[in-house]
Amino acid sequence: MKSAIFYHAGCPICVDAESQFVTALDPKQYSVKVVHLAEEKDQLEAAKSAGVQSVPALVVEGQPFHINFGAAIADLA
Amino acid sequence: MKSAIFYHAGCPICVDAESQFVTALDPKQYSVKVVHLAEEKDQLEAAKSAGVQSVPALVVEGQPFHINFGAAIADLA
Repeated sequence: MKSAIFYHAGCPICVDAESQFVTALDPKQYSVKVVHLAEEKDQLEAAKSAGVQSVPALVVEGQPFHINFGAAIADLA
Repeated sequence: MKSAIFYHAGCPICVDAESQFVTALDPKQYSVKVVHLAEEKDQLEAAKSAGVQSVPALVVEGQPFHINFGAAIADLA
């Protein structure tokens, strides 16, 4: 099982990306974790370490993919 | 079956997104079409109409998601 972490901050663009993207991933291939960075601030460092610069973002097997633009991660600290 | 169209231009960022994203979509839910806009210029108008502003981008059920940034669509015309 590959890992995918979806980082978001509850913004409308994040919600759109979650509903269209996270549910689109193949459940046979991916174990998906969803992290709300505005509520789980202890996860900010992990997100930054993975290269996440803005939300919404999906980290697939350690590689960050920024999906559209909701908010800069610097604004969530 | 829902439709997803992945627009790219052969750039390294596009290739990364394709290998990690397009293959991650649930094949039971999505029929995925891949369009190379630098080679299939007749598809540029369709991409623009769907709201694609840069590549790589994935249009899921008509909604555009820009994944990281490879090239602006204006530079592919």
